Amino acid sequence: MSLLVTGARVVATPRGRAAVAGRDQGHLEMSPGAVVRCEGADVVFVGDRGEHDRSFAPADEALDAAGGCVVPGFVDPHTHLPFAGAREDEFDRRLAGETYAEIAAAGGGIVSTVAATRRAGFDELLALTLARLDRQLLTGTTTTEAKSGYGLELETEIKQLRVLREAGRRHPVEIAATAMPGHEVPPEWRHDPDAYVELVVREIHPAIAAEGLAEGVDVFCERGVFSPDQTRRLVADAARFGWRVHLHADELCNLGGAELAAELGAASASHLLHVSDAGIAALARAGVVAVALPGVSFFLRDRFAPVRRLVDAGVAVALATDCNPGSSHTESMPAIMALGCLGAGLSTEEALTAATLNAAAALGRADRLGSIEPGKQADLVVLDAPSPKHLVYHFGVNLVRHVVKAGRVVVRDGRKLAHS
Amino acid sequence: MSLLVTGARVVATPRGRAAVAGRDQGHLEMSPGAVVRCEGADVVFVGDRGEHDRSFAPADEALDAAGGCVVPGFVDPHTHLPFAGAREDEFDRRLAGETYAEIAAAGGGIVSTVAATRRAGFDELLALTLARLDRQLLTGTTTTEAKSGYGLELETEIKQLRVLREAGRRHPVEIAATAMPGHEVPPEWRHDPDAYVELVVREIHPAIAAEGLAEGVDVFCERGVFSPDQTRRLVADAARFGWRVHLHADELCNLGGAELAAELGAASASHLLHVSDAGIAALARAGVVAVALPGVSFFLRDRFAPVRRLVDAGVAVALATDCNPGSSHTESMPAIMALGCLGAGLSTEEALTAATLNAAAALGRADRLGSIEPGKQADLVVLDAPSPKHLVYHFGVNLVRHVVKAGRVVVRDGRKLAHS
Repeated sequence: MSLLVTGARVVATPRGRAAVAGRDQGHLEMSPGAVVRCEGADVVFVGDRGEHDRSFAPADEALDAAGGCVVPGFVDPHTHLPFAGAREDEFDRRLAGETYAEIAAAGGGIVSTVAATRRAGFDELLALTLARLDRQLLTGTTTTEAKSGYGLELETEIKQLRVLREAGRRHPVEIAATAMPGHEVPPEWRHDPDAYVELVVREIHPAIAAEGLAEGVDVFCERGVFSPDQTRRLVADAARFGWRVHLHADELCNLGGAELAAELGAASASHLLHVSDAGIAALARAGVVAVALPGVSFFLRDRFAPVRRLVDAGVAVALATDCNPGSSHTESMPAIMALGCLGAGLSTEEALTAATLNAAAALGRADRLGSIEPGKQADLVVLDAPSPKHLVYHFGVNLVRHVVKAGRVVVRDGRKLAHS
Repeated sequence: MSLLVTGARVVATPRGRAAVAGRDQGHLEMSPGAVVRCEGADVVFVGDRGEHDRSFAPADEALDAAGGCVVPGFVDPHTHLPFAGAREDEFDRRLAGETYAEIAAAGGGIVSTVAATRRAGFDELLALTLARLDRQLLTGTTTTEAKSGYGLELETEIKQLRVLREAGRRHPVEIAATAMPGHEVPPEWRHDPDAYVELVVREIHPAIAAEGLAEGVDVFCERGVFSPDQTRRLVADAARFGWRVHLHADELCNLGGAELAAELGAASASHLLHVSDAGIAALARAGVVAVALPGVSFFLRDRFAPVRRLVDAGVAVALATDCNPGSSHTESMPAIMALGCLGAGLSTEEALTAATLNAAAALGRADRLGSIEPGKQADLVVLDAPSPKHLVYHFGVNLVRHVVKAGRVVVRDGRKLAHS
């Protein structure tokens, strides 16, 4: 099966098979008027139409970009997709000035999502997750990371990850599943967090690994959650299973989370609002992708991660939604790109690299995803816009017209196709 | 023709036939499980299904809200819709730290939009405007204000307003057209702004009035643009034609714009980033609607209007996109509501009133639009969300499922209907 994308005003993409760090992150390859040829799941040609026609037979299928621009499918490298329950009331209480601590003391906060997710049946959680994947796909995301971590007990952690496995079978969005029993100390273990850590090591991680439900591990290293030593214990355990390492680091205060991510060989460190200069240098040296989550800063009316300092120090920056019900309730990568630029200070080109190639690198997929070039998988978004700058410049409206995943058209004219 | 909207989890609306000011702005009427009956263009019943069925014959048409919530169609009370040209390059230069003054000196800024709009043919400008109206409608806007002001000469001001008249005939979104030759002093009159003001009074306003192309006037009262005295001259002239008065006030500095709006009996004053306490008191006393434009603050990385001080002082606050290519390039009222809450500090309920009833009041239409109650026009939005809080809480994705304008379904399942 071959597909030819024609009629693009421009094909805009970062290039390479690894994260792009520092000032190079703002450099996109712009191919005005280029066509994109896909064979099976992969891109085989990007370039001039005449050259294509001399080299290839007519394609089985055509997709007309109609003067729009073509960019790589977005990769969302940090989400908490499989959750139940909403927290809009708590949200308004925060807008009115209540603190997270006050809300948590009244039974709100993450504990309420844990309770709702534990209660939810498999089918309910699957339906909620599929609906979120639809919203991701319609806003241009073709690959997403998704974490457990609202179970904090064996049964529910497994349920969340089985939901992700089933969702990945049914939905065109590719899912990278991450085990995160280290998201929070559950209420029943608050008296003895170390005992919970040992429970994770003894039972939860091995059960997840036994079913092959995860390819990565994530831990929330934070004061009052998991200490650096507890984080080391959980990550060292995950090494038994070959899991890629991610950390929630330096979000609420500086615990040296970035330095720890570098020490542990993490693929990515997220949040980083309070990262130090030493932490930034450690990320740059170790090649850890810094995942900025500007939706959280917007949602919590907090500061933004220092993305300019990170880029200027030679760190590869990615962007993610952190989609979750308590601190960033959105599936839209274009919304996050707008916040990454207008809130945090990236350029639109840096934001596009952050939402594609660097995000793929955070998931260990930069060899296959995140850019439009021969040999990579054909994950493409056709925008109803003359340039990728409009993803940020024309904010608040959905410019995604068509989406191609692995060489197959899965969204056409803003609609998910039935076979998808 | 009758229409019955069923299946709503809740119908949520402000109430009344005038702007709601102060703390009352945050009070919505919530009718769980209510149906909405429309006859012709109007709402005739909101309430219990059983009561409806006892009082009315079966409706000609049904619309199933499917567990979503029903809110009034959004009213966008401040836009510059009919423009040509984009300014995304300038946008990235600002992100990189260049000032507006530097960009304007290099031929950018409003002057570049004026040049592009003067060059654009009628059909081109109409097509651009219709595309923007589509994006408004798909994000839930059923009525929009739209200004001239990128002509700054007779021919182009008339062209912009004729485009709006024609667009209003073709498109379901209702348009309130505003004459704004007082948007800027055009380059060719920079040597003598008073002479430009006299040209507007002598030729441009009368020509607009002669064709009945506007129902309001707006002036940008600002240092380096139009002084308070020049603004008085333009507004006094507009009184000849019975035009409603709007002002761009206290945006870049405090010139007493809010006080002037009160003095001139304006229906609305927009921007207000630098409004003084005296100006706020004047707005409250005179019943001028304060139109906050948080998209501009976001886009320009500037402060937000002091919406909390305005609400607390008893001013009625509305929200608008200010859709324009230089300082807020979006058509989405939900995006603006999110910024009005998470940026500026409104509650979600206040933001909904600001985007409906108070916005209608800013356009002199609160007697007919802006709330869901018997006797008002049936302009409705069905959201794919359990409560209106999700308009802000679930930001960045389009939750608008169906739209009804004047009793007619014009958007179904996120698609504009062909007859519209």
